[in-house]
Amino acid sequence: MSDLVSRVPDSQIHGDAGHRVDRLVHPAEVRGPHDLCLLMGKGALGLLKAGGGKFSCAVIERQLADAPESGAVLDGLTAYLLVDRPRYALACLSPMFRQRSQPVAGVHPSAVIEDGVVLGEDVSIAAGVWIGEGVKIGDRSVVMANASICEQAEIGEDCLFYPGVYVGHRVQIGKRVIVHANASLGGDGFAFDSAQPNSAEAAREVRAISGGGSQRLERIESLGRLRIEDDVEVGACTAIDRATLGETVIERGTKIDNLVQIGHGNRVGKDVLLCAQVGLAGSSKIGDGAVLAGQVGVVDHRVIGANSVIMAKSGVTKDVPADQVCYGMPARPARDVLREHVWVTRLDRVFKRLAALEARLEDTSDSH
Amino acid sequence: MSDLVSRVPDSQIHGDAGHRVDRLVHPAEVRGPHDLCLLMGKGALGLLKAGGGKFSCAVIERQLADAPESGAVLDGLTAYLLVDRPRYALACLSPMFRQRSQPVAGVHPSAVIEDGVVLGEDVSIAAGVWIGEGVKIGDRSVVMANASICEQAEIGEDCLFYPGVYVGHRVQIGKRVIVHANASLGGDGFAFDSAQPNSAEAAREVRAISGGGSQRLERIESLGRLRIEDDVEVGACTAIDRATLGETVIERGTKIDNLVQIGHGNRVGKDVLLCAQVGLAGSSKIGDGAVLAGQVGVVDHRVIGANSVIMAKSGVTKDVPADQVCYGMPARPARDVLREHVWVTRLDRVFKRLAALEARLEDTSDSH
Amino acid sequence: MSDLVSRVPDSQIHGDAGHRVDRLVHPAEVRGPHDLCLLMGKGALGLLKAGGGKFSCAVIERQLADAPESGAVLDGLTAYLLVDRPRYALACLSPMFRQRSQPVAGVHPSAVIEDGVVLGEDVSIAAGVWIGEGVKIGDRSVVMANASICEQAEIGEDCLFYPGVYVGHRVQIGKRVIVHANASLGGDGFAFDSAQPNSAEAAREVRAISGGGSQRLERIESLGRLRIEDDVEVGACTAIDRATLGETVIERGTKIDNLVQIGHGNRVGKDVLLCAQVGLAGSSKIGDGAVLAGQVGVVDHRVIGANSVIMAKSGVTKDVPADQVCYGMPARPARDVLREHVWVTRLDRVFKRLAALEARLEDTSDSH
Repeated sequence: MSDLVSRVPDSQIHGDAGHRVDRLVHPAEVRGPHDLCLLMGKGALGLLKAGGGKFSCAVIERQLADAPESGAVLDGLTAYLLVDRPRYALACLSPMFRQRSQPVAGVHPSAVIEDGVVLGEDVSIAAGVWIGEGVKIGDRSVVMANASICEQAEIGEDCLFYPGVYVGHRVQIGKRVIVHANASLGGDGFAFDSAQPNSAEAAREVRAISGGGSQRLERIESLGRLRIEDDVEVGACTAIDRATLGETVIERGTKIDNLVQIGHGNRVGKDVLLCAQVGLAGSSKIGDGAVLAGQVGVVDHRVIGANSVIMAKSGVTKDVPADQVCYGMPARPARDVLREHVWVTRLDRVFKRLAALEARLEDTSDSH
Repeated sequence: MSDLVSRVPDSQIHGDAGHRVDRLVHPAEVRGPHDLCLLMGKGALGLLKAGGGKFSCAVIERQLADAPESGAVLDGLTAYLLVDRPRYALACLSPMFRQRSQPVAGVHPSAVIEDGVVLGEDVSIAAGVWIGEGVKIGDRSVVMANASICEQAEIGEDCLFYPGVYVGHRVQIGKRVIVHANASLGGDGFAFDSAQPNSAEAAREVRAISGGGSQRLERIESLGRLRIEDDVEVGACTAIDRATLGETVIERGTKIDNLVQIGHGNRVGKDVLLCAQVGLAGSSKIGDGAVLAGQVGVVDHRVIGANSVIMAKSGVTKDVPADQVCYGMPARPARDVLREHVWVTRLDRVFKRLAALEARLEDTSDSH
Repeated sequence: MSDLVSRVPDSQIHGDAGHRVDRLVHPAEVRGPHDLCLLMGKGALGLLKAGGGKFSCAVIERQLADAPESGAVLDGLTAYLLVDRPRYALACLSPMFRQRSQPVAGVHPSAVIEDGVVLGEDVSIAAGVWIGEGVKIGDRSVVMANASICEQAEIGEDCLFYPGVYVGHRVQIGKRVIVHANASLGGDGFAFDSAQPNSAEAAREVRAISGGGSQRLERIESLGRLRIEDDVEVGACTAIDRATLGETVIERGTKIDNLVQIGHGNRVGKDVLLCAQVGLAGSSKIGDGAVLAGQVGVVDHRVIGANSVIMAKSGVTKDVPADQVCYGMPARPARDVLREHVWVTRLDRVFKRLAALEARLEDTSDSH
């Protein structure tokens, strides 16, 4: 256990510091004395009690240990670690228990490497990968099977690209970037126009135009780039488009979940969380530390301030200041929207009270 | 026709049982006497009438045949099958008319099979497939072109994996599982934490915190598994993540459409239908036989009871009991939400009635 | 500049027509006298003023030039093009500035071409591509790395398929079609039924049935086709399913963004725009020139009229006539829905006015 305590800030070890730990598992999967599990939340002490002698070692949320009934239960453990932030402890400890086999450095014979490619030291290029002309890949980066990386793309050190990932030409990717399976980085933006007004334009002004569909839509080529900074993670089947001119940017440390759409020209700040199925139309700016929960949409040319939180399924149609919590379609301060939701559920009473008033007034009139 | 009748429960054949059938087609595509079509719903009899001699054989919803005007029309057919549930009849009959060429058993020379892989009998591994160390694939399973299957994954018998599918390490897949193109099975969960409170945490409590974005987000490694049971189908570009600890589970017979997101630690029950673009955040339980219609979202740690139906675009934020129909964001009993929708459309009248009451009361006051 | 003016209808050149242009860039990226940028919208003149001598040549929205203060600013440019529709000018000019390397014609040695494949002139088949039996590909079409094209598919001239694209058997694709990375064209439809009523059926009738989940779901095979006409573009990770019987059709000139779901049997008209994450359940008809904004959903068997606009995040549950703008879930005329949104925000006043009326009426009663 002693090697664990040094990994988690402000953690304390109790019991036998020399106790050996083999696996980090879910409490339901503890099989032997060397299976470490994490106990957090209300039910955890009960779990420990019910487990009888099954649990030998654990990582435990500190406030649980402070509970009066916890003493006897904890005494039954051979060793445990008290931590302030159990999920953060998991972030610190989980890398020690990864069970993946290490990718073999080198280029698999079935991979195709075009001219002018520069590969750093200990790069691993798996079976079926295609790497276009002039691509640069930094030291120790891993490109898994059947990924395709187009010409002039630049990828930093210690990146991990899962199978089937697509990287477009001239895309720039920083260090320690993880991209999950079948993501598409640097596709062309969804940008078209026609010689005469078309229904897409009308859409922006919330009106329809007759004959709008008779206009042939011509592609606006995406001449711009996509740039992804260090420590970004991109989910499976997520699509991030390059800019028309200029660049689409994902800044340092931002984490993007599966099936997210990031249209052309967006700039996503640092340490942002974009949850699954979020969609950013285009040319918006997402401030540092913002959180967009699942299935949120953002129309084009919007600014979301730093640290703001957009609740699940909301649609951002106007700029959001910093440090706001917004909700709904259209997204507005969550407090207002939640209050209005309650009002709507009480509309039956409004109708009843109106009817009562009307009846009463009728009586009053009659009585005159 | 006689070989068809045995396939469909409670079906009855009329006319020439020996009539030959070559194709099963849309009514609009009937070209000759051996083209079988399915006639169901209100417009079907009219179609048959209008078709004149074009239709020779058909599968017909029984209640259509019971209509008084149908006798003469049906007499014009050489043979027809009466069925109670026309869509179920289609499920029974359509496998007889598949036009796909049978995949060739064996391993294509361009596929890459790592050490320790165990392939069952008559397995078909297509061009460009990569199969990692220690993978097991059951008899007659088919892996189509450019799929990538990582180390220690286990796949049962009679599975069909379309091109570009990704299967992560140690993922367990049952028998007769179908996975459509470019799906991602067993990616890492979207799980991060920081040493100090961050805006993601604030988001859970519907508040923003200043400086939340200054916290560096650390990955919580996904040490858990993904397990998919028998007879499951997974749509194209769908992403299902492995658990942090423990397992993500998709139980027997569940059908998942395209572009669905299933986050880490969810447990989806038996015979569930997850329609296109549904998103499950994480650690939720979906009961047997539940139906989540298109674009539904479910926040984390929720329970949806057996046989419940969540209508399209709803957002589940609270537990749903069994046998419920829910709707809206947040999802509540559909009846309540639909009634409130009507109330809202009548708000103009509320404002008018209020104004009338106020005016009248003004008069009443004045008259005193 | 003189070669540019001929490309843009109704454009006029001012200054040195012989001025050389090397790049078309974002105004923020102008580095030298031969960098052309596009200036449109309110802020553009200010940008030009602030830029000092940095800007030498530009494409400028005509109405900016008409502003009284613009004369002096424009005089500072060596050459500029005045255009009526700046975005359309971008569509006309951007193809001249593409920086991609031309794909090499021919079949890469690592590609696998099955029997009976017919490739047109100057077709380019990249590394790792698999092409099934009997596929036909028209002149000059390009299939990028690791794409998989199944038996009997037919692809027209001048198409561009990005890496990882999947094309199902017998899918028919027209000329000049662009398909972005990891899209899935022609997967099986999401169609299942059971011998007895199941919860999916109940869902259609907004009711739950007990034991609905005990019914085993049987696949209805997709015997139909997918047909995509000329000049269609399909986004990354988009999934379009084939029909059960008959065909799913995407008509000429329609543009489909990333992560869009098009279920079985839909017919999407000409010059339609389907923005990112749109979902069409099945068997719907989308009229020519319609625009479905981001994250819109359409339930099955609906008709959306020509040139109609469905605003972002709406859910179409009923037919929409032509030339309508609809919004909300369920989608209704946008004007109505937006007005109701305002009413809801004013519900606090309704409660106050009701209370005031009740109090007053109480007084009135008391006074009798």
